[in-house]
Order: sequence, then structure tokens, then C-alpha cells
Amino acid sequence: MKDQIAEEYVQVDAEPWAPFPEALSAGGIRWKLLHVSPEMGSWTAYFDCPKGSSFNAHIHQGPGEYLLTKGRMDVRGGKDAGGDTAVAPGYGYESSGARHDQTAFPVDSEFYMTFLGPLVFITPDGQPVAVVGWKEVQGAWQAFLASQPAQQKKAA
Amino acid sequence: MKDQIAEEYVQVDAEPWAPFPEALSAGGIRWKLLHVSPEMGSWTAYFDCPKGSSFNAHIHQGPGEYLLTKGRMDVRGGKDAGGDTAVAPGYGYESSGARHDQTAFPVDSEFYMTFLGPLVFITPDGQPVAVVGWKEVQGAWQAFLASQPAQQKKAA
Amino acid sequence: MKDQIAEEYVQVDAEPWAPFPEALSAGGIRWKLLHVSPEMGSWTAYFDCPKGSSFNAHIHQGPGEYLLTKGRMDVRGGKDAGGDTAVAPGYGYESSGARHDQTAFPVDSEFYMTFLGPLVFITPDGQPVAVVGWKEVQGAWQAFLASQPAQQKKAA
Amino acid sequence: MKDQIAEEYVQVDAEPWAPFPEALSAGGIRWKLLHVSPEMGSWTAYFDCPKGSSFNAHIHQGPGEYLLTKGRMDVRGGKDAGGDTAVAPGYGYESSGARHDQTAFPVDSEFYMTFLGPLVFITPDGQPVAVVGWKEVQGAWQAFLASQPAQQKKAA
Repeated sequence: MKDQIAEEYVQVDAEPWAPFPEALSAGGIRWKLLHVSPEMGSWTAYFDCPKGSSFNAHIHQGPGEYLLTKGRMDVRGGKDAGGDTAVAPGYGYESSGARHDQTAFPVDSEFYMTFLGPLVFITPDGQPVAVVGWKEVQGAWQAFLASQPAQQKKAA
Repeated sequence: MKDQIAEEYVQVDAEPWAPFPEALSAGGIRWKLLHVSPEMGSWTAYFDCPKGSSFNAHIHQGPGEYLLTKGRMDVRGGKDAGGDTAVAPGYGYESSGARHDQTAFPVDSEFYMTFLGPLVFITPDGQPVAVVGWKEVQGAWQAFLASQPAQQKKAA
Repeated sequence: MKDQIAEEYVQVDAEPWAPFPEALSAGGIRWKLLHVSPEMGSWTAYFDCPKGSSFNAHIHQGPGEYLLTKGRMDVRGGKDAGGDTAVAPGYGYESSGARHDQTAFPVDSEFYMTFLGPLVFITPDGQPVAVVGWKEVQGAWQAFLASQPAQQKKAA
Repeated sequence: MKDQIAEEYVQVDAEPWAPFPEALSAGGIRWKLLHVSPEMGSWTAYFDCPKGSSFNAHIHQGPGEYLLTKGRMDVRGGKDAGGDTAVAPGYGYESSGARHDQTAFPVDSEFYMTFLGPLVFITPDGQPVAVVGWKEVQGAWQAFLASQPAQQKKAA
């Protein structure tokens, strides 16, 4: 007999910011993990992207949906290059298979995003270099929390 | 040969507000449909909930995730009744099978929410009265847009 | 820290057959529940459908996929009525929103099916009468197992 | 306005068998693609696995469910090594994150499987070597069909 999954609540502004890996981004992006769904393989996070920051090339294996709550985000090169330029408050749907060679932030920006399945970060010729799914983000987030001074740690 | 699904972008503040059906809510809730995924049966919307408004009793058939961007939301009776009380910026995960006898807004509030599968609105003894999934929300949204004066209509 | 979901294995021919509710079908359909996923709201079952049996009218809220392993199944009225007639071994994809006014078995048949989200059984004019999702099928299956004589019960 | 996704039917025994890539398997595995869902990133296939064949090491990024219709399949090393040994008719659920260092077939076997998200084939130390999702399997299947003599080609 399996139980209904427990509901969850996270006070977003009470969570600390973790640095997003430099190997996968540039310019000081920070993030907060809000949720992982181990069964579906989905996960949800909030990102803080300073002016000039960007994510490295990646493929969305499953669909992803974002709400840009602050600033501006150039997706798939931005509008001028045939992609989208989101301006807060902006919503976007990135489909399974979407390849983002660069996602860039021309001004200080923040966005919330739900992901189904992993991001696969790739080399310029499309070879996989890192698979970032619910397990990897949960592991990274837990490692970050464990590294924080006690007074900043979130109560379990 | 099936194509990759097209990416989408919606300028959230450029969309009009539609009244949420009075049969399913009270107090003047309004909404904007941002996305439907006909294949998965998922959908995404933004809600504006004035002080004192509430949604009628419903069950989340699949998981739902919200980001409360403004105000306060009492979910499953609120914190004092064993549920959650979200305060913006707050994130919540409502699981498949979650029954919400009342979701209430004690102050002017707004939230963004992604849904997998339908909401089933129910009578007090749990009988289904309305199934609200991607098809129904798309139909309601299109009917609303068609009813708007031309100058307010969104370009296709 | 959430764990990876446990893998599962079911020896299909060792499970007992439960009668499928007469209120939702006709002609002696039996079934075995193989799996429920409470987080996604998905579930998987095996059905045994004698010659002349049928399921009552229902809507697939999420996608469903079947493998007909024996016999013949007339879906959406069968091929002659614009639907499909599956002949074992046959595969079918039923999309989110698919309405099946009758699914009928002209010969003794068996099929395996995975479901995302609930089936909503409906009246002829489309009103919901029963929502059958992971919770309901798990409850029905557990009640059936509990009703079985001890020697037929499956070890936990 | 988005349409409901079309239903599909495939006569499984009328489809040809394609060789499964030698780079990802050993012993002459063959397969048939039955379905892809570009929006969810899910896909469904049927596999024919001769005695002595096996799949190379891979990780299931999302959940997978199989029905072994013939023979025997040693999953995660088989029962003696702490995994599962399926015997037809057998059902199995492989969870998101499941790592299969070897999946082996001690006798001639066949199975049907639904996948959410990609398989990531890996090196012994877990580095990704190939991401196999709906796009890749559809591409491989179409290339196989195009390579077949005309009389064996399936009508569109």
C-alpha cells in the first residue's frame, strides 16, 4: 500500500543562495533548490543571474517551464537570433529536445523553473559532458547546505 | 516522423485577466492561461485572488506546484488547521490526490501554478462535479478571448 | 534527502484475478494491478476480457498505452466506426482527452496497459460519475486481496 | 488552440525488426519502435533478445516499465546478485536513476517497455557516452526503415 506523497512548502526568501557550478555557467549564477520528485524525475529551482552571466550549452531532455520574475533573459540566442527574449514578468516553455547553446542575462535577473528530466550539458559538437537531473541537483544542494555555517543552516 | 514541440513565450503582463468561474470559486478570482500540454495533460496558469476570495473544494489528480508571488494563501485550511500558509515569495508542492476543501486568500494575492492532470471539483461528500483539465481550461480561455473587444484581443 | 524509488518486480501469472466493477463494465472483465506511481499519478494493470465483455463510457484524462496480448479489442467503436480494432499482438496509444464510449471484446482477450492520470467514467451526456486513478485502483486491489482466502494471498 | 493528440495503433507483428546498435549491446538484440511522445519525452519499444545477449551499462533517467512476454531477463545482475530475474510473463518497474550495469538474457527473450525520458549509456566509471531519448530512437528507427527494401517498408 503506497501513501500519497506529502505536500511541501518552502519559504523561498528564507533559503540560502548556492553558487551554481562554474563548470556549467559563467558570471556568478546562484540558485536555490525548491523541490525534487524522484519518481517522475522532475525538479524545481529558483535562479539569480547577475548582469552578464550565462549558462553553458545544454539540452533540455524533458520539458521545462520558467517564470522570469525579474530582469531579462535571452533564450536560444535571444529574439534577434531567432530565439526568445523574456522580460519580467515573462513565461516560457522549453520543449523536450530544446538545445540552448547560450542562455544569457543582460541585466540582473531572477527566474523560477520546473524541469521534467535532466539537463544534459554538452560540448560544442553535442557530446554529453554532464547529466544534471533530480539526483544531481539534490546532491549538490545537500552538499551546499552541509558546507554552510550552523546559524545559516535550514532546520530539517 | 514527429517534430520537437515548439518553444513558447508569453509576456505575462500583456495578457488580459479572465474571470474564474463563479461555480468553482468565490470572491472575484481572475486568471490567465499561460500554457497547455495536450500530450501530457499538463497546464500552467497565473491567478489573481482578491482579499477574501477562495477556490471551491477540489482534488488535484496529478501533482501541482505553485509560486506565490504576492500576498498570502491558506492551503488545506492554512497552517493553524494543519495545512500550509504560504507567504510570498513561497513555493508549494501539492501531491496527486491532495484534497483542498478550501483554498483561501486573506489578503490580495497572486500565484503561478503548473498542473499535471485535471483538478476535480467535488461536492462536500467527495462526488465529482467538474473535471478541469487542459481541454477545459483551453476552451474557457479561448471563449474568454473571443468575448473581448477587438482592441484588447491578443494577436494570434 | 529523498531516496531513489525502489525497483519492483511482479510475477504476472502468480497474481490472482480480481473482478472489475460491474458498475463500470459488463460481461465479466477481470484485472490485476501491477503498479501504482503515487507521485506522477500513473498506474499499470493487466485485464482479462471474455468474449462479449466491454468497458463503460470513459475519458482518458492522461495518455494511456496498451499492448493487446491476446484476442481482439474494438476501441472507439472499432475500425468500422472510425476507431481502431486491435488484433493481438497490437499496440495502441490513447491520448489525453480520448473519449471511449465503448471498448468491446468480440473474442476472449487480454491486454496490458499503462495509464497516466485517472480514467473518468461518464454518463452518456459526459457528466463524471467516477474518477478512477492510482488511489482508487490501489484501494480496490487491496480490498480484493484482503477478501481472498489465506492460501491465495500473495506474500507481502 | 491546440488539438488533442491523435490516437495511434501499431500492428506489432507487421513491423520489421531493426538491429539494436552494437555499440550499446551485444549478442544480436533487435527492436521495433512503437511510439514516441515528443512533448513528454517518452517512448515505447519492443525488444527481441537472443540467448546470451545483453545491453551495455546505462542509467534510466526517468521511470521505465516492462512486460517480459517471452523468456528470462536478469536485471541489475539478476536475483542472485541482488537484482531481479524476470520470467515471462513478468512485469518490472525501473525507477528514475536506476543504474543497470548489465541486463542479460540467458534464454531467447522478448519484452515490451515504456520509457519516460532518455537512457544514458555510461562508461564503467559512470561518464555519459550516449543519451538515447525519443529523438534518437525516432531518428534511428526512421533511418532503419529508409534502409529497407521497398517491399518490406511499412505503408505511411
